[in-house]
Amino acid sequence: MYDYAMAMNNLSVGVLGGSGYTGRELLRLLGAHGGVEVRFATSDSEAGRASGVPGLALSRLEDAAPDAVDLLFLCLPHGESVPWMDRLAGTPVRVVDLTADHRPGSGREDGVVYGLPELAADAVREASAVANPGCYPTGVLLALAPLCRAGLLDASRPVVVNAASGVTGAGRAPRRELLFGEVFGDFRAYGLGNGHRHLLEMRAVLPSLDLLFVPHLLPVARGILETIVLPVSEGVSAEHVRDAWRALYAGSPAVRVHDEGAPSLAEVVGTDVLALGAVDNAGLRAPAVTVVAALDNLGKGAAGQAVQNMNLMLGFEAGRGLRC
Amino acid sequence: MYDYAMAMNNLSVGVLGGSGYTGRELLRLLGAHGGVEVRFATSDSEAGRASGVPGLALSRLEDAAPDAVDLLFLCLPHGESVPWMDRLAGTPVRVVDLTADHRPGSGREDGVVYGLPELAADAVREASAVANPGCYPTGVLLALAPLCRAGLLDASRPVVVNAASGVTGAGRAPRRELLFGEVFGDFRAYGLGNGHRHLLEMRAVLPSLDLLFVPHLLPVARGILETIVLPVSEGVSAEHVRDAWRALYAGSPAVRVHDEGAPSLAEVVGTDVLALGAVDNAGLRAPAVTVVAALDNLGKGAAGQAVQNMNLMLGFEAGRGLRC
Amino acid sequence: MYDYAMAMNNLSVGVLGGSGYTGRELLRLLGAHGGVEVRFATSDSEAGRASGVPGLALSRLEDAAPDAVDLLFLCLPHGESVPWMDRLAGTPVRVVDLTADHRPGSGREDGVVYGLPELAADAVREASAVANPGCYPTGVLLALAPLCRAGLLDASRPVVVNAASGVTGAGRAPRRELLFGEVFGDFRAYGLGNGHRHLLEMRAVLPSLDLLFVPHLLPVARGILETIVLPVSEGVSAEHVRDAWRALYAGSPAVRVHDEGAPSLAEVVGTDVLALGAVDNAGLRAPAVTVVAALDNLGKGAAGQAVQNMNLMLGFEAGRGLRC
Amino acid sequence: MYDYAMAMNNLSVGVLGGSGYTGRELLRLLGAHGGVEVRFATSDSEAGRASGVPGLALSRLEDAAPDAVDLLFLCLPHGESVPWMDRLAGTPVRVVDLTADHRPGSGREDGVVYGLPELAADAVREASAVANPGCYPTGVLLALAPLCRAGLLDASRPVVVNAASGVTGAGRAPRRELLFGEVFGDFRAYGLGNGHRHLLEMRAVLPSLDLLFVPHLLPVARGILETIVLPVSEGVSAEHVRDAWRALYAGSPAVRVHDEGAPSLAEVVGTDVLALGAVDNAGLRAPAVTVVAALDNLGKGAAGQAVQNMNLMLGFEAGRGLRC
Repeated sequence: MYDYAMAMNNLSVGVLGGSGYTGRELLRLLGAHGGVEVRFATSDSEAGRASGVPGLALSRLEDAAPDAVDLLFLCLPHGESVPWMDRLAGTPVRVVDLTADHRPGSGREDGVVYGLPELAADAVREASAVANPGCYPTGVLLALAPLCRAGLLDASRPVVVNAASGVTGAGRAPRRELLFGEVFGDFRAYGLGNGHRHLLEMRAVLPSLDLLFVPHLLPVARGILETIVLPVSEGVSAEHVRDAWRALYAGSPAVRVHDEGAPSLAEVVGTDVLALGAVDNAGLRAPAVTVVAALDNLGKGAAGQAVQNMNLMLGFEAGRGLRC
Repeated sequence: MYDYAMAMNNLSVGVLGGSGYTGRELLRLLGAHGGVEVRFATSDSEAGRASGVPGLALSRLEDAAPDAVDLLFLCLPHGESVPWMDRLAGTPVRVVDLTADHRPGSGREDGVVYGLPELAADAVREASAVANPGCYPTGVLLALAPLCRAGLLDASRPVVVNAASGVTGAGRAPRRELLFGEVFGDFRAYGLGNGHRHLLEMRAVLPSLDLLFVPHLLPVARGILETIVLPVSEGVSAEHVRDAWRALYAGSPAVRVHDEGAPSLAEVVGTDVLALGAVDNAGLRAPAVTVVAALDNLGKGAAGQAVQNMNLMLGFEAGRGLRC
Repeated sequence: MYDYAMAMNNLSVGVLGGSGYTGRELLRLLGAHGGVEVRFATSDSEAGRASGVPGLALSRLEDAAPDAVDLLFLCLPHGESVPWMDRLAGTPVRVVDLTADHRPGSGREDGVVYGLPELAADAVREASAVANPGCYPTGVLLALAPLCRAGLLDASRPVVVNAASGVTGAGRAPRRELLFGEVFGDFRAYGLGNGHRHLLEMRAVLPSLDLLFVPHLLPVARGILETIVLPVSEGVSAEHVRDAWRALYAGSPAVRVHDEGAPSLAEVVGTDVLALGAVDNAGLRAPAVTVVAALDNLGKGAAGQAVQNMNLMLGFEAGRGLRC
Repeated sequence: MYDYAMAMNNLSVGVLGGSGYTGRELLRLLGAHGGVEVRFATSDSEAGRASGVPGLALSRLEDAAPDAVDLLFLCLPHGESVPWMDRLAGTPVRVVDLTADHRPGSGREDGVVYGLPELAADAVREASAVANPGCYPTGVLLALAPLCRAGLLDASRPVVVNAASGVTGAGRAPRRELLFGEVFGDFRAYGLGNGHRHLLEMRAVLPSLDLLFVPHLLPVARGILETIVLPVSEGVSAEHVRDAWRALYAGSPAVRVHDEGAPSLAEVVGTDVLALGAVDNAGLRAPAVTVVAALDNLGKGAAGQAVQNMNLMLGFEAGRGLRC
């Protein structure tokens, strides 16, 4: 009998950028995955320290062998993935890029599969290179795409997305406005004026919608909650919305649809799940359903989704290594 | 020469309900106000403890003389103001009711002035009884009323209000869902379905608008941030919005209009100020301006506004005793 | 070949008190353990809701069969374990009691094994009833017991223990002083005067030491950090302390000794590990070593340790089901 | 009649370093003080922004006139006060230095008065230059000095000081370990090994004591709580401790002695008060009293104390401009 598990164990991966919040979370997941061997995890600033993978220390980039693994994760600062993607093009090394460099709207998305596993599993399976979606777009797109497909939305009215993210979403590089003394007890909107980079990504994927997006900085470490006011067609209720989600996500380990009410942040922090809820509104002249999407920005919004993509690319079970 | 300050000092007030978050904040403000004497502050559960007013302990209700003050503040649980208001009707004792019992939409608002000082100063000055507005409506109504008057809004489209409040907004009575262990690290929408009591209050004041209101519970002690997506008429910009605010609020000590950008929560926590900002949005098919209103739910959203109303009713300077 | 795993799967457990913080944490661990079947988890107040064990709802006590499991966990309010322990005495049902009712110093510890797995593994293995240690004592006793045995301490001087615990350590019953609005931004000592219940427990186990214990309430949900000033004998250094720990805890999955420096709370939150560090002090007349012990009050301080005890009692591998 | 208040208004001050946490707090206090004119507040990084003093913007250092004020506050990074103090020596400009540069133990304390107003009012009044004490030493020294004087302590045993400070105590310069994402949910000891700079300061002032000092980083923005285990002489109780404090601090606006129990952090955050409490311990072989000192690191621990010193130096009432 062919020992599939053994064969799996021969698969190797590497991580470029292992000391940021996303890289560290990814390494913890990979260390517990059981199906892949992590050959290296680089960090010039923290070389020599523990990587989160048992027995593996962070190493300097020059000591890594990015060309000698089956799959390479790029957890670099935004902008630094481009040369790596170019260098590995045409080689057998497959890439999951967690930066924004090759996402829809970046102008560099050609030849790169946008890795929303629930919407593009077949393409991800075959992809040489995958752009791992942004944290905010993951929730918004998985909430809205099934509703667009099902024709539930009134495209003549805008979709208002209010979102709030924990501070790790802004990265681990020291900046004054991210100091504990600045964020504690505060709450603020940012990227006002509809100009956030993630909005380009959402619009590129769902061009038919008139999206208005207001992100906020939440005084917690992790998690995103997105409150979306859906302009629905006459007669469309929250139950129609849930049905459209269920039709697409039944069997998906990483999406959970609430039968009633809305998820809270605490429900998803530390998991790789996107939780979705929909509620009807009373007393409105223009019909609207309120949708709440909750996910961990480091889980389903980044590292968890990267592992999902890896599972598809390397032939593992969909939910392997995920906290669902 | 008539000693105005001395005469002022003869004015007396009392507080029913001095141990909740609002009552305690009010007592701190009254203790520092300098123009009134606080005769009593009641709390059956904490009688004997310090009241926040130097030299005054909390007392049992039976030891207070609510009929013998110039002005009485009602900081009772919602529902308990009704008998007090009835009892004092026709007496010289004037009342500021901080409960929801006599606000617009309550069905008991007849004969009671709705105390938004910036919009109804003359009526408040003459009022026997004032209903102090809810914390959420204070920000929303002061943001929207001038824009309605100025004809800047497209009434055919809904106004989407996303709001987030610190936990003291839910009161000081012990409830499991307000425990630190439940709220820490969490963020959640509540009152979903457009059924929050405060929405009735807003709609009763601005019936021409189609309001959709989603409140959220924020893991901080104090403060409210409201992000309002305004459906504006063609050609209306954020600068028009600011101009409408400035026209009405110039000279108001408790409203601050940002010349650009939006206020954050930290800017207003511990103050009695409402801060307003407006920002244009790019790339939308239906024109919209994003407004952010920030206030302290215990300051301008409750106790600070009650002091503003008292200042009008008793003839003090508008900003006396306020933290602006 | 004897299928050990299959036999294991026939072992059944039950939980009385499944909706408190400890009960919920325990159910999550048991649900993922893989070696036992959770037959019931009771909660009169939350009957019908999810238990944390896949496929098992919380049930009313009257619908449980506490006498029909191999091992019963008592996660009841303090004081309520006594009748259960009496009722099950002499039956084949083994008990792990997570309340304080049968711990050393309670006056009811006869016939009950004190379940510190690292110090009493053999006794736990054979025990009918185990008293699961308190969260504070777990850290203090595992830190100090090896040092007493090794004769490193100067028993003529007091041992000063300053400890800080997250709020879940105080339970999930609603109390005003545990509201988010009270705890946020605060930090306070409590149980001052050396009268905390947990101190009795520590003294009963280590009567030779003169312990002074000051607990503090920390504004986080989970975790305990204990800073212990050790009065050491002349010539004793932090390295001697670490050696004593290593000698006893080598191979223990749930105790981690730092080679240098001290652990922080974040290192252990969400795990079942106790982390220990020791540091020499400069410039003191009376020699002292500072020890820091960190653990999750719900993990190694409660539910994790209960699973460790279960593993010993039912013959599982020591670290099974633990997050180490 | 000589108009003292008018003369007071002619007094001018300046602040070097107006954008750090301490500088900003100081400017808020000075702006509300009413007795001094703030001529300038410098910040090269934030020049042009609001200073916290109404009508005064932050300016570049080159646009300030440090030699032309009555009193200059130095809120610079540690190490940068030395050249300023040298430059102003012999001029009429008096200096309050909020850095550590000239505190006891720095080696540069000659000719500089250590500004603990409650212990050295006369010296401060006459001083040309005052070293404003560190935040941790302020609480420890004001708690211990009266007890040393009164002979209550057993100097043969060590004094164990556990202290916890909010994050603003570490300054506003961006550092990774102070990011919100790192500190949230964490608690840690630092400066272990009895080597914290502030310990030198305490030891220099109270050389007769054998001090052991363990600071911790608390996940709040502001406030210090110090738990001190006092080795008292036989027969000395908490009431003796309180009496010694009362004897020295009666009439001091900035020190509050609790009649029973201990202060909490929330009681002092946002104030300029040091709150002190003492509690007897039961069941110890070596008698000890537990003392808790609470203060705001930016208030009594820095800016508030600087204003107290200014009040003494310029002849204002002791409590003027303080939040007591």
